Amino acid sequence: MGHVMDKLVRFGVAPVMGDQAHDAREMMAMSLLDWATVAIAGRNEPVARIVREMAVDDGGDGQASIVGRSRKLPVRAAAMVNGVASHALDYDDTHFAHIGHPSVAVVPAALAVSEWIRAPGSELLDAALVGVEGSIRLGRWLGRNHYQTGFHQTATAGAFGATLAAGRLLALSSHQMAHALGLCATRASGLKSQFGTMGKPYHAGLATETGVEVARAAKAGFTSAREGIEGPQGFGRTHAGEGDMTAFDGLGRQWDSLTISHKFHACCHGIHAMLEALSKIDCAAGDVAEIQLWTHPRWMSVCNIPHPSTGLEVKFSYAHCAAMILSDVDTAALESFSDQVARDPALVALASRVHVVADDNISETAARVEVTKNNGAVLSRDHNLKAPVRLADRRLKLEAKSRALLGERADQLIEAVGSLPDLPALCTLLRTS
Amino acid sequence: MGHVMDKLVRFGVAPVMGDQAHDAREMMAMSLLDWATVAIAGRNEPVARIVREMAVDDGGDGQASIVGRSRKLPVRAAAMVNGVASHALDYDDTHFAHIGHPSVAVVPAALAVSEWIRAPGSELLDAALVGVEGSIRLGRWLGRNHYQTGFHQTATAGAFGATLAAGRLLALSSHQMAHALGLCATRASGLKSQFGTMGKPYHAGLATETGVEVARAAKAGFTSAREGIEGPQGFGRTHAGEGDMTAFDGLGRQWDSLTISHKFHACCHGIHAMLEALSKIDCAAGDVAEIQLWTHPRWMSVCNIPHPSTGLEVKFSYAHCAAMILSDVDTAALESFSDQVARDPALVALASRVHVVADDNISETAARVEVTKNNGAVLSRDHNLKAPVRLADRRLKLEAKSRALLGERADQLIEAVGSLPDLPALCTLLRTS
Repeated sequence: MGHVMDKLVRFGVAPVMGDQAHDAREMMAMSLLDWATVAIAGRNEPVARIVREMAVDDGGDGQASIVGRSRKLPVRAAAMVNGVASHALDYDDTHFAHIGHPSVAVVPAALAVSEWIRAPGSELLDAALVGVEGSIRLGRWLGRNHYQTGFHQTATAGAFGATLAAGRLLALSSHQMAHALGLCATRASGLKSQFGTMGKPYHAGLATETGVEVARAAKAGFTSAREGIEGPQGFGRTHAGEGDMTAFDGLGRQWDSLTISHKFHACCHGIHAMLEALSKIDCAAGDVAEIQLWTHPRWMSVCNIPHPSTGLEVKFSYAHCAAMILSDVDTAALESFSDQVARDPALVALASRVHVVADDNISETAARVEVTKNNGAVLSRDHNLKAPVRLADRRLKLEAKSRALLGERADQLIEAVGSLPDLPALCTLLRTS
Repeated sequence: MGHVMDKLVRFGVAPVMGDQAHDAREMMAMSLLDWATVAIAGRNEPVARIVREMAVDDGGDGQASIVGRSRKLPVRAAAMVNGVASHALDYDDTHFAHIGHPSVAVVPAALAVSEWIRAPGSELLDAALVGVEGSIRLGRWLGRNHYQTGFHQTATAGAFGATLAAGRLLALSSHQMAHALGLCATRASGLKSQFGTMGKPYHAGLATETGVEVARAAKAGFTSAREGIEGPQGFGRTHAGEGDMTAFDGLGRQWDSLTISHKFHACCHGIHAMLEALSKIDCAAGDVAEIQLWTHPRWMSVCNIPHPSTGLEVKFSYAHCAAMILSDVDTAALESFSDQVARDPALVALASRVHVVADDNISETAARVEVTKNNGAVLSRDHNLKAPVRLADRRLKLEAKSRALLGERADQLIEAVGSLPDLPALCTLLRTS
């Protein structure tokens, strides 16, 4: 068995423990709240509706809850439906080193399987945490080259994380977990070229469905390639993986999950540092002559659509988002990313005066902005998303986000998730949303 | 829209016509017979059982028949179950330039959707033909490099073929077909490192399920990347595709499907030329001192397991298969590829005297063998699988294969498929097998 396979299997079946375990669980509980918030808020996005209606048409055994409909579906289908809904708004959590969105790929698998087997909330939480952590580590192992080549870690590394979560809940043996991960290696897929289309949120559904299916298959005796991840023709080498083994340092003792970022603007995470920096600048839109933005080069192929024509494309446009925040459009609100906003002449005119500069000296989580006013004055600010946020402060911000998106229903959700999820209450809220 | 996307979309929605259309349809009808034969024969293989039981447990709307159980399942699930069953024996058809197994990825999607929408047999046949042809062309476009890097065209190119077949039956517009193919680009997956495990037959299920799902999604309004196949981060470039546009020459007028090979030995197709060559040599096993085999280098990583320990591994072992045919073990019979045969001391001893030589001068479809007898005499033969077989002769061989595998039931199947499939009769045979 390869080193990576071995490490993931051991981690996947071991108890969650160690000095950081308490904080990591608290962080996971917050991510679960955030996940449920954006899943409920995104349940009626077109992509979420299409995938849900297909699954409902198929029907089947009522094993697990889906967001936005009262009927339950087979665990596989529920994972897919909830995965897509939760990534539909692109408002879910991110881990920059991962490189991707960990919770949307892992939580729906963990949740559906937990409901199916009636696991206690503590087991759901540990399974989601192990899955998220495993996906982050594997995402780091695949590395920058995997992403830059065109793969989407949310989908690819995410599928392995979902496999760990589902496999753990199904109490797979080490042997079975290895087969599940090996099978995942031949199913995991997802290309960055789908960004800006319904294909991107679909990736979360694919990843999480894969985790459920390969874990169930392994439980039933399915065999797969032991060298599926790391071998000469394993997932890593065939998918431009970097193979940096330090990605697994401290696995089981230290938690990368503690450095997950949550989103407080309803657009691509690559744009957030710019928005935070611009929000520190006091200048009315009418006074702006020109905006210069310095950002890390990796974002140029991700969120630098210069002339977005739809609300979805606006989420991936530095220029338009800069124009929006300078014009006091609320970038936290979902309604702000509409086709109408994309076409707004004043915003389009202001966006045309935004110049984006790729700069290797800027970290990926940071941005620097310089606004030149009509009177010649120049205002400059920067921001780094990595600036730490205390757990208690993060919870307050996430609860506020939940209320902003869900209104009064947020209070029930906040109560159902808490620090130890009340699984039946959470599932009921998803079904009745 | 990229050139490849454009060509596939046009081909996918156009009527089947031209000078070769009659022969291509006749060939497809034979492949359909062969597909149903191996699906029925393979229905109780462990991998087929596992996948079927998972799908049956999920249940759902009875839209399409599955092999080996009387109850119908949603079209998605039926495609998956039948895809896996039909590739479980590795006894299905092959196209060497493709590089893979076209029918197992395409036919299950075409069949399930046809049954669901009650399409006439002529539409099933044309959809399967267009899907198979499209997958072969795309497999050629992805090329040798895609395969040698570690991808399995059966799974990858096959998914696009299944998409064309399902999309055509669902009467997708050109616009919708492009979205279906674009979405397929982010789902298609399958690694050669699974060869010798249950992961390989699973690839056929994945491909054909993908075709059904992306076609349904596109019909319902799903959007995806227009550059999903050919763009800078499209499927081709991210998956080591060669991008040879001549792969599409004559598409719609000439049919690569006419050069599909059907299997008459129950093992990996890379071994067949050697078996045919050895079958021309008259030498009792006890008289053999040594066997030398020359084969194309590409097969060395596919079917040269030197010491197989299971019946499944024997199917990918030149040495063991050579020992078997020289010892008069029937390589057409499924029972011959057992764990017991893998362990047979006499076969193991003879296999240890087989020397496999990779030789660039041998074509991929050919083999040369040299048997040195204990008395010092040397016998040499070669064989090329590309030597043409007349359609009428091929039909006779396929009907004989069907009878060898299915006994008396073969006659009903042969009648149900014919040159124009009787869809209800065919589905009934699958369900009651």
